Amino acid sequence: MNNHRFTTGLEKLHEIDGEAGRKVIESLQDIAPDLARYTIEFPFGDIYQRKGLSLQQRELVTVAALGALGHCQPQLHVHTHGALNVGCKPEEVVEAVIQLAVYAGFPTALNAMFTVKEVFLERGLIEEK
Amino acid sequence: MNNHRFTTGLEKLHEIDGEAGRKVIESLQDIAPDLARYTIEFPFGDIYQRKGLSLQQRELVTVAALGALGHCQPQLHVHTHGALNVGCKPEEVVEAVIQLAVYAGFPTALNAMFTVKEVFLERGLIEEK
Amino acid sequence: MNNHRFTTGLEKLHEIDGEAGRKVIESLQDIAPDLARYTIEFPFGDIYQRKGLSLQQRELVTVAALGALGHCQPQLHVHTHGALNVGCKPEEVVEAVIQLAVYAGFPTALNAMFTVKEVFLERGLIEEK
Amino acid sequence: MNNHRFTTGLEKLHEIDGEAGRKVIESLQDIAPDLARYTIEFPFGDIYQRKGLSLQQRELVTVAALGALGHCQPQLHVHTHGALNVGCKPEEVVEAVIQLAVYAGFPTALNAMFTVKEVFLERGLIEEK
Amino acid sequence: MNNHRFTTGLEKLHEIDGEAGRKVIESLQDIAPDLARYTIEFPFGDIYQRKGLSLQQRELVTVAALGALGHCQPQLHVHTHGALNVGCKPEEVVEAVIQLAVYAGFPTALNAMFTVKEVFLERGLIEEK
Amino acid sequence: MNNHRFTTGLEKLHEIDGEAGRKVIESLQDIAPDLARYTIEFPFGDIYQRKGLSLQQRELVTVAALGALGHCQPQLHVHTHGALNVGCKPEEVVEAVIQLAVYAGFPTALNAMFTVKEVFLERGLIEEK
Repeated sequence: MNNHRFTTGLEKLHEIDGEAGRKVIESLQDIAPDLARYTIEFPFGDIYQRKGLSLQQRELVTVAALGALGHCQPQLHVHTHGALNVGCKPEEVVEAVIQLAVYAGFPTALNAMFTVKEVFLERGLIEEK
Repeated sequence: MNNHRFTTGLEKLHEIDGEAGRKVIESLQDIAPDLARYTIEFPFGDIYQRKGLSLQQRELVTVAALGALGHCQPQLHVHTHGALNVGCKPEEVVEAVIQLAVYAGFPTALNAMFTVKEVFLERGLIEEK
Repeated sequence: MNNHRFTTGLEKLHEIDGEAGRKVIESLQDIAPDLARYTIEFPFGDIYQRKGLSLQQRELVTVAALGALGHCQPQLHVHTHGALNVGCKPEEVVEAVIQLAVYAGFPTALNAMFTVKEVFLERGLIEEK
Repeated sequence: MNNHRFTTGLEKLHEIDGEAGRKVIESLQDIAPDLARYTIEFPFGDIYQRKGLSLQQRELVTVAALGALGHCQPQLHVHTHGALNVGCKPEEVVEAVIQLAVYAGFPTALNAMFTVKEVFLERGLIEEK
Repeated sequence: MNNHRFTTGLEKLHEIDGEAGRKVIESLQDIAPDLARYTIEFPFGDIYQRKGLSLQQRELVTVAALGALGHCQPQLHVHTHGALNVGCKPEEVVEAVIQLAVYAGFPTALNAMFTVKEVFLERGLIEEK
Repeated sequence: MNNHRFTTGLEKLHEIDGEAGRKVIESLQDIAPDLARYTIEFPFGDIYQRKGLSLQQRELVTVAALGALGHCQPQLHVHTHGALNVGCKPEEVVEAVIQLAVYAGFPTALNAMFTVKEVFLERGLIEEK
């Protein structure tokens, strides 16, 4: 049975995304609880359990992919927190997003940066003006 | 004048993308030489000169962004070589692309993996069957 | 003249999208009334008049396409209502969106599901907590 | 353990995609065998096992999503075969793709239709001229 | 009836896209003749008949949109010819594509430029090396 | 040194985007001042300084590209103002967006039009109802 994937996935989700991850899972319970379960089992129970990349590397890859897609700002918000939660330096996240200006264009990079800025404000890494 | 950005950009382009980078630049000369120049100056003269991420980290970010976009296979090909050229392990590139299955879907991840496979065949990392 | 396409299109728009469709058309009147007219004539006067797929099938196709694109949440909102208006079961819409996790990635599927959830709340299919 | 998801997923993959599905899985073995395994387990062992939509409905949803994304022609090719394999009528696939002209634009719809045409030629549903 | 839209659309298609436009329409006849008809009626019978932009402006807009989408190279090929057919200067098309480096990223702009280059070679505007 | 690109870029940014451009630049100062600098230097110091297209043509190209991408509404808002600031007629912007219905689909065109409508309301070109 899948119990192990779910259990280890849930732990990993909490390690990476913390409270924000829990809220996403909860908000699916009354409409698509199986999608909540899959979100725990496959990304966090399968993929984030893998060797070959550190959690910091994985979160930078995630920030880059979400930023490039452009229409996934809520997930970019969660995974910017996630990147910092697992030990990425703020400068690393900022650099990854600056680099999107080359590969996905300036507007997509700017929108990603404004999402990163919201997270930095929430964490007190920069101050509201 | 911009001479320094161009000169250091050209060196960085060669360091990362080698012959493939040179060919892209050459193929633009008869239609849009300024786009060739910008490609050297901004991505390689500005962005890849930056601190805050190692070249290996930058190439993983690039592989993730290009893979997620889905319609940039020629550039993914060049930058898979680039990632390996600057010292990423083959497993790291493979892991970054596997992770795209979560964030950009299985078809996009599979197409990216087949491009990575072409590069691995070209470099003799795996063998043609 | 095009009168027949417009008239039958307007009827079909009302049948599928109801009040929400009417509002979209109205909101275009002071800036691009011709785009309003085309929206009635081509999608609803030409395409949704066609045989070969039932209206329920057409709306599932629409939900899948809009969900996969990722940046069309207002239209996904309207067509989730539309799917239910023409007789799709709520579970069918939910299943179509779950399936997007495979083809467009988890974040795109999650964002689509949260739009579907808004519609289910509006229709009292699930309850606000 | 995951054995059940893999076994039933492999059967479902064969039922839907036949030989083409098997080739995709095989071609991943020397570079990312785990991605092959996930492709069997999650899409085919989890999602395509679900109730709530018939296989024909699922394949129409897949054709719509892949067509709308625009950069997934190899998968659209496989799943056009898949749609026909599980009992979709050729006209239903054609109608789903015509509808993409509304939601993803004419170029994306035309490119999808040309992929569908290749499949129809391979299956002798239409004749080469 | 729609006869006028079809007739004037067909003329406009020939004026803009010439032989390439005719081939696209022909290649749809055995699989989706109605999609061929819609392609004539709506884009060319409705939109390209409109005032407010010159044909040159419309073709620049089309080149920009197709280039930005990234997965519509066949249509970008046809409309690069189209832009030149209706009197855009080669430099104008090149400039529009260079500008995509800012808004859609360098890889998307480079891929668009290589499609433009194919057209320029076909028309003898530049020479094969 | 890059001083000339920055100085002329800043002037051009003000000419095109006015106050809105300045705000974007300012909002980056506490998180990624270098991305602000690049945004001035490359798009406005390099690209918008070029000959070959008028500023009006460049802004139409930008509106078309941003509209087609679909997830860049804040930039589409800024550049709709920009287009009008440099002398595009309101009808030209509206026509460019109507044309997106053909190339990027109706939902993407409608979303772009609603952004254009916000700008027209801000400028008093149309009236709030």
